[in-house]
Amino acid sequence: MHHDPELISDLVYANRILYDQGVVDGLGHVSVRNPSDSGSYLLSCNRAPGLVRREDIVCYDLDGQAIIQTDQRPYLERFIHGEIYRLRPDVMAVVHSHSPSMIPFGITKTELKPVFHMAGFLGAGSAFFEISDHAGDSDMLIREPYLGAALAKSLQQRSCVLMRGHGSTVVGQSLYQVVYRAIYAEVNAKLQLQANALGNIHFLNETEARLASDTNDGQIVRSWNLWKGRVGTID
Amino acid sequence: MHHDPELISDLVYANRILYDQGVVDGLGHVSVRNPSDSGSYLLSCNRAPGLVRREDIVCYDLDGQAIIQTDQRPYLERFIHGEIYRLRPDVMAVVHSHSPSMIPFGITKTELKPVFHMAGFLGAGSAFFEISDHAGDSDMLIREPYLGAALAKSLQQRSCVLMRGHGSTVVGQSLYQVVYRAIYAEVNAKLQLQANALGNIHFLNETEARLASDTNDGQIVRSWNLWKGRVGTID
Amino acid sequence: MHHDPELISDLVYANRILYDQGVVDGLGHVSVRNPSDSGSYLLSCNRAPGLVRREDIVCYDLDGQAIIQTDQRPYLERFIHGEIYRLRPDVMAVVHSHSPSMIPFGITKTELKPVFHMAGFLGAGSAFFEISDHAGDSDMLIREPYLGAALAKSLQQRSCVLMRGHGSTVVGQSLYQVVYRAIYAEVNAKLQLQANALGNIHFLNETEARLASDTNDGQIVRSWNLWKGRVGTID
Amino acid sequence: MHHDPELISDLVYANRILYDQGVVDGLGHVSVRNPSDSGSYLLSCNRAPGLVRREDIVCYDLDGQAIIQTDQRPYLERFIHGEIYRLRPDVMAVVHSHSPSMIPFGITKTELKPVFHMAGFLGAGSAFFEISDHAGDSDMLIREPYLGAALAKSLQQRSCVLMRGHGSTVVGQSLYQVVYRAIYAEVNAKLQLQANALGNIHFLNETEARLASDTNDGQIVRSWNLWKGRVGTID
Repeated sequence: MHHDPELISDLVYANRILYDQGVVDGLGHVSVRNPSDSGSYLLSCNRAPGLVRREDIVCYDLDGQAIIQTDQRPYLERFIHGEIYRLRPDVMAVVHSHSPSMIPFGITKTELKPVFHMAGFLGAGSAFFEISDHAGDSDMLIREPYLGAALAKSLQQRSCVLMRGHGSTVVGQSLYQVVYRAIYAEVNAKLQLQANALGNIHFLNETEARLASDTNDGQIVRSWNLWKGRVGTID
Repeated sequence: MHHDPELISDLVYANRILYDQGVVDGLGHVSVRNPSDSGSYLLSCNRAPGLVRREDIVCYDLDGQAIIQTDQRPYLERFIHGEIYRLRPDVMAVVHSHSPSMIPFGITKTELKPVFHMAGFLGAGSAFFEISDHAGDSDMLIREPYLGAALAKSLQQRSCVLMRGHGSTVVGQSLYQVVYRAIYAEVNAKLQLQANALGNIHFLNETEARLASDTNDGQIVRSWNLWKGRVGTID
Repeated sequence: MHHDPELISDLVYANRILYDQGVVDGLGHVSVRNPSDSGSYLLSCNRAPGLVRREDIVCYDLDGQAIIQTDQRPYLERFIHGEIYRLRPDVMAVVHSHSPSMIPFGITKTELKPVFHMAGFLGAGSAFFEISDHAGDSDMLIREPYLGAALAKSLQQRSCVLMRGHGSTVVGQSLYQVVYRAIYAEVNAKLQLQANALGNIHFLNETEARLASDTNDGQIVRSWNLWKGRVGTID
Repeated sequence: MHHDPELISDLVYANRILYDQGVVDGLGHVSVRNPSDSGSYLLSCNRAPGLVRREDIVCYDLDGQAIIQTDQRPYLERFIHGEIYRLRPDVMAVVHSHSPSMIPFGITKTELKPVFHMAGFLGAGSAFFEISDHAGDSDMLIREPYLGAALAKSLQQRSCVLMRGHGSTVVGQSLYQVVYRAIYAEVNAKLQLQANALGNIHFLNETEARLASDTNDGQIVRSWNLWKGRVGTID
């Protein structure tokens, strides 16, 4: 199967940008739905996002099987991506990470809500996923399809789910948008945590959040160009 | 219209410095009033401040119309600048940003006050702007002249206004001064937030703040040279 | 005595990585047990970890004597390493540091517990060492064998011990693993501190922690490659 | 007058190191007592510490007059240095800064105390200086000899004084030691602030602090070499 080289390039940049912006460290991953086959998606093989190269991109079906067989070891948790794509046809890109400022919210079951217009996509609040409700005592990872399906279900129509004792997953309607969302979900978490110590927070209401989100979607390319410039060449 | 190349150069540096110092990210903008026509101001077209070049600088009238027609897309919120220049003849430069440590103050309606001499310009405290008082539910942005005018009015004679759910705007009597103020408003916010967790804060009183501000104005060039050196060449 | 050049190289990288990742500053040290003689271990001479070179690596016996005499000044606290290797045959590598986010836990006698799967190795909680119980008023350092032995004993079967007024020590079954643990013990401390301000923390239980730790051990090389790439060449 | 080129070089490095380590920004200064004339000291002219060069070093008498006349503008607050050297014959080097984490302590009148052995030099606690007790409402700066004398007196035999609404000053028995102390006073402040949110802090007692300080003095060169290496060449 032949994939659009520009999409591959964007996906490699998405990996590098998420590392440069502190959303991922050695772990975490970002995928994009295959534009020519909605039943598959593109994701790197098992490499640190900051080191991902064009040749590391693999196309998986929604069950997490590589479309073309490969010797490359896959990410253990690729089922996060497949099962969300299966349940949410509107989702075109997914980021799973241990984005640091979001962890304290997940482990204290505190909802993430938009503190400013940049995080309008959080207007419905963050969803919450408790893995032990599904797996009992586990290694916390979404390493089987049924756990991916349970996570996808917990997400409902929201853009972000906090995974207790693990991390978070953010979804978007495009690769640029999901990178933007992953970066500003982290920023929002940091600011919400600080503001929480200062007083009662006046969050954006749902209408403000939706309107802000719509406007921001028209400005993402400005930030993308900045982020892309920072990581330099990918070859 | 021909503009002083040194002013253009300073404005480009102001953009790059504000990015390097963490006041702006992909968004935010800085303008300077046109020294040869107080009814217009210089501002970049719609680019991330860290990427702004000489050729991106556009001259706008106070209604936000480019003086010389251009194909360059403008910032949505340029009305912040024009309306403040209209209402405040003393203001010669404006920074609008999502300066991170100031957000928690805006969303908890906590006044920013000077914790140290470097922030003497905050002596009158920060002003506060609630956009929903003027626009009802909105996308939070100052995307129309009447909102810029309302923001300018909320500023009164102060140097800084916190915009709930959005960011902040800082004004100064020169480009160097407004860059200095934007940087130290952020520093002050971070320190005030930390000190708040430690005990009762002894702020500068208004006289101390005014005297400190006057003295610091004579020292700004020392910091400007450092900041400029960090961003390197702009061409 | 001849040592495996790859092990020496890995130990130099371990030093540089711990500095690059903010676990150590000018002080702190990392050792690995000698694979060909379990009664000795490899450790740099008295240099800042970020500057350690191949030729700085010295082999010490468990009493802290250099196996081959050398003019190089040793670390004052090498007894931390020898005494832990003596008491814990399962330990193959040791990091001692002043890892910043762990200090607040040691000085408030707050237990470090795993907030997410990456820190599953903290499942049994952190041990605690009060030097004044053994040395009365001291300079806080483990500069004699009996203090190293007391520290080793306090560790029990845990992977991490907080040293009041000083720092912490982390142990592992390999060099890669101990570097991973030292980095994520710091991350866990930072997140636990933040979450503590937000609400009641739902920590990993002991089974979750053990399962997560087992899984993560299979993923360490992914992070190691990233960390190693960041520090560049060591020659 | 001819000064030891190595001392000049060390003083330039001290400036660059304090900037690189985040103790100073565009402002702040470091001096060393003249080894061949205890009634004078070496200090840069009015430049950002991160930009100081050999040719910027000026020798001042204790009244703040340049020994050899110069066109170079002096720091406004050089009286901090001269008056401390006058009152404290044991002091050989002084750092004045707005070291960020120390500000919250000064403005809430919270004593800085040693949380770990690296800050043993804080064993007697930080001194506190309230400028309005001496100058009434002022610009907060030590811009006259009598204010320098008052600050020096407030310091007593301590190594650190917090200046309300301004910053702090740290003294030492050598240039290397004062740089070490300025860096670790900042680290200690950050850790004390965090620990304060976690529980009751078990500080080093005065004996532990003194013993730790004595030991650490023998290890400073290890850190100095690391810090010096980071700033690279100064020419």
